[in-house]
Amino acid sequence: MPDKLVIKRIKGGVCAPRGFQASAVSAGIKNPDAPRLDLALISSQHPCAAAGAFTTNRVKAAPVKVSQAYLKADAIQAIVANSGNANACTGVQGISDARKTANLVAKGLGLRQRQVAVCSTGVIGLPMPMARIEPKIPELVAGLGAKNGEGVAQAIMTSDTCKKEIAVSVEIGGHRVRIGACAKGAGMICPSMATMLCFITTDAKVTPACLQKAVLEAVDVSFNRITIDGDMSTNDTVIALANGQSGMATIKRNSKECRQFRKALHYVMLKMAKALVRDGERVTKFVTVEVKGARTYLDAQKVAEAVANSALVKSSWNGNDPNWGRIIHAVGYSRAMVREELIDIHINGKAACLGGLQAKTSMDTLRNMVAKDSFTITISLHLGKADYEVYSSDLSPEYIDFNRSEYAYWKQARKDGLL
Amino acid sequence: MPDKLVIKRIKGGVCAPRGFQASAVSAGIKNPDAPRLDLALISSQHPCAAAGAFTTNRVKAAPVKVSQAYLKADAIQAIVANSGNANACTGVQGISDARKTANLVAKGLGLRQRQVAVCSTGVIGLPMPMARIEPKIPELVAGLGAKNGEGVAQAIMTSDTCKKEIAVSVEIGGHRVRIGACAKGAGMICPSMATMLCFITTDAKVTPACLQKAVLEAVDVSFNRITIDGDMSTNDTVIALANGQSGMATIKRNSKECRQFRKALHYVMLKMAKALVRDGERVTKFVTVEVKGARTYLDAQKVAEAVANSALVKSSWNGNDPNWGRIIHAVGYSRAMVREELIDIHINGKAACLGGLQAKTSMDTLRNMVAKDSFTITISLHLGKADYEVYSSDLSPEYIDFNRSEYAYWKQARKDGLL
Repeated sequence: MPDKLVIKRIKGGVCAPRGFQASAVSAGIKNPDAPRLDLALISSQHPCAAAGAFTTNRVKAAPVKVSQAYLKADAIQAIVANSGNANACTGVQGISDARKTANLVAKGLGLRQRQVAVCSTGVIGLPMPMARIEPKIPELVAGLGAKNGEGVAQAIMTSDTCKKEIAVSVEIGGHRVRIGACAKGAGMICPSMATMLCFITTDAKVTPACLQKAVLEAVDVSFNRITIDGDMSTNDTVIALANGQSGMATIKRNSKECRQFRKALHYVMLKMAKALVRDGERVTKFVTVEVKGARTYLDAQKVAEAVANSALVKSSWNGNDPNWGRIIHAVGYSRAMVREELIDIHINGKAACLGGLQAKTSMDTLRNMVAKDSFTITISLHLGKADYEVYSSDLSPEYIDFNRSEYAYWKQARKDGLL
Repeated sequence: MPDKLVIKRIKGGVCAPRGFQASAVSAGIKNPDAPRLDLALISSQHPCAAAGAFTTNRVKAAPVKVSQAYLKADAIQAIVANSGNANACTGVQGISDARKTANLVAKGLGLRQRQVAVCSTGVIGLPMPMARIEPKIPELVAGLGAKNGEGVAQAIMTSDTCKKEIAVSVEIGGHRVRIGACAKGAGMICPSMATMLCFITTDAKVTPACLQKAVLEAVDVSFNRITIDGDMSTNDTVIALANGQSGMATIKRNSKECRQFRKALHYVMLKMAKALVRDGERVTKFVTVEVKGARTYLDAQKVAEAVANSALVKSSWNGNDPNWGRIIHAVGYSRAMVREELIDIHINGKAACLGGLQAKTSMDTLRNMVAKDSFTITISLHLGKADYEVYSSDLSPEYIDFNRSEYAYWKQARKDGLL
């Protein structure tokens, strides 16, 4: 009998699971002259199992290095996060600043420094404005409350245009369990993690090893499947905290309960991942690229990522152009094994290309499909049984325009005496 | 003693070498209502050694397949090329159309079909408008003349804004030798060949094997070093014809003359490659990305290509933003071995980042460098002795806007009864 799992959406974001509190303040990191929420805290009142997934970029931000090390000590039960400054390429000072932030928060919470994970997102290469962050930490800690999940979702936003949060309730082994999450994305989004942060809270009771495995598995089919601009950031971080406050017994490895928990976690992370694509920088379309019938899984992945990352393909989507010629050219350069004369390309199930040639579907029909806010490109290679799916977007002139300069941030840093 | 070689620029493009003629006509392939030159012919009056380099895209245009096969027969002495239609993803009909074009030109020239290479560039997936091409071939052949090099350079243009041609004269082994070339590029430009055509003519006397080796070597350090949008096309072709009419003896393998010839060929191809970048679609800047001190050659290449292809890095160049943070983040995800704390980044020799940290150079100085039409990014990894260099460009909002739709081409094809 297959596992049955009813996933119910609830309110509260990261505060929906029992025993979690949150807080968010304005520290003037994004812009001291027009303060917005930019410093956030999530805290469990009880010890947690913790798990994480981090960027594979060889240039890692200081908070990534610090949080990875803290995670090994296996006692994390709070996360402090800021937006506006990535604390990346900031050397010894950056590491020191990240540790100091963790330390100040830990003191406020009565925890040890290693129990507080630190995350940053924003501009790379600028020193952290600690003079503005430090005095705000008492206010941040004092503000902890069980209804502030939304504030955290807002405070981690950078070029995001809307907050991304979710909470679900599921019954696992006779106990009601809640999972909450918030995330931020927008630019530097690419398979193998994005410029993204995602914080997950749950009152399920799982071992750290089981949680770590579940997080890595879910990342592989959610955040590793999204691409906006093909760039991978220095700061990507997913952290999950499980405090066991649902009252259930510890979930056993490979049990039915374990499968159900993983399913619910996957649901939450996939929703967050897709939300990041939909709110990608100046994105107008959500495009699912599915590859079927590749000889190997790796081949299927190569084809999906080549198509989903092609500047020319993404430009055509922006223009409502059902241009299968550009799609097949990206299939060809993906380095996967393909045979041109076997390739079919469908747009929302309508044939655009059959056996490597223009299909009979009318141009207007295809154009109407690509004109939608959301559509699916299916590439069938007919060489084997491997499939892969990526969630992508169009690339707009506005994206480039938006990303032309971060100079204003640097000018501010100089004004602050940081450069 | 090092080889001394004086390379003199001369006029005439592909017709500069002795014994070559050219012709170009309007066949209405680009636009039947507003005819522009779009069908071109280069022909040697004498037998040639021929060599070629072709796209590594697994989806290859019909003329690529046909010309590769003809090249093996080793008797090519003419090239017919069209712009406006790539004759790619056109199946059996496309192969038949490419062969027919070669056949008609061969008959006009008194050659065999396999002596005429065929090249196409333009939109992918549309059948060739043979009804417009066929009747124009007699006019094309009749128009052959020794002063029409420029016409060929014009007729192969697609989204290029200016023709690219060159001719040089060098003294090799006491004989004056000429090399001429024309090329087209603009979009789908990426290392490992671009959407580009390049035709090279010379009156040097070389064996086919020697010419082939020289062409591949020169491609590797010219056309394989350029990137505009990271997309690799189905039609990339370089063809070189050497008719020996300079009167010299055959250049021997590994001789001083051979080295001199290769040097001159490299000069010509690098000039053409750089010209393609400068005239990339809506490009405003020419950027040399040089990587020094990588552990391996492959690592140096990975770093250079990751930086040169990053949408975020290219966007910042478009905005005159000396954003070394984005550069180092691309270095980090390149999958090359790097150590963040050893990385230096210079812009036109001015330090932007030293040891992974912001350098002291004033922001205005760096900004002035990136504001230039042409600048060099130097990334020093300090891990070994391997270097690599790529020629790149910025990415502009206008590029995306320009590439939003090819729909008009498809509408024309329907009007022509081809779809």
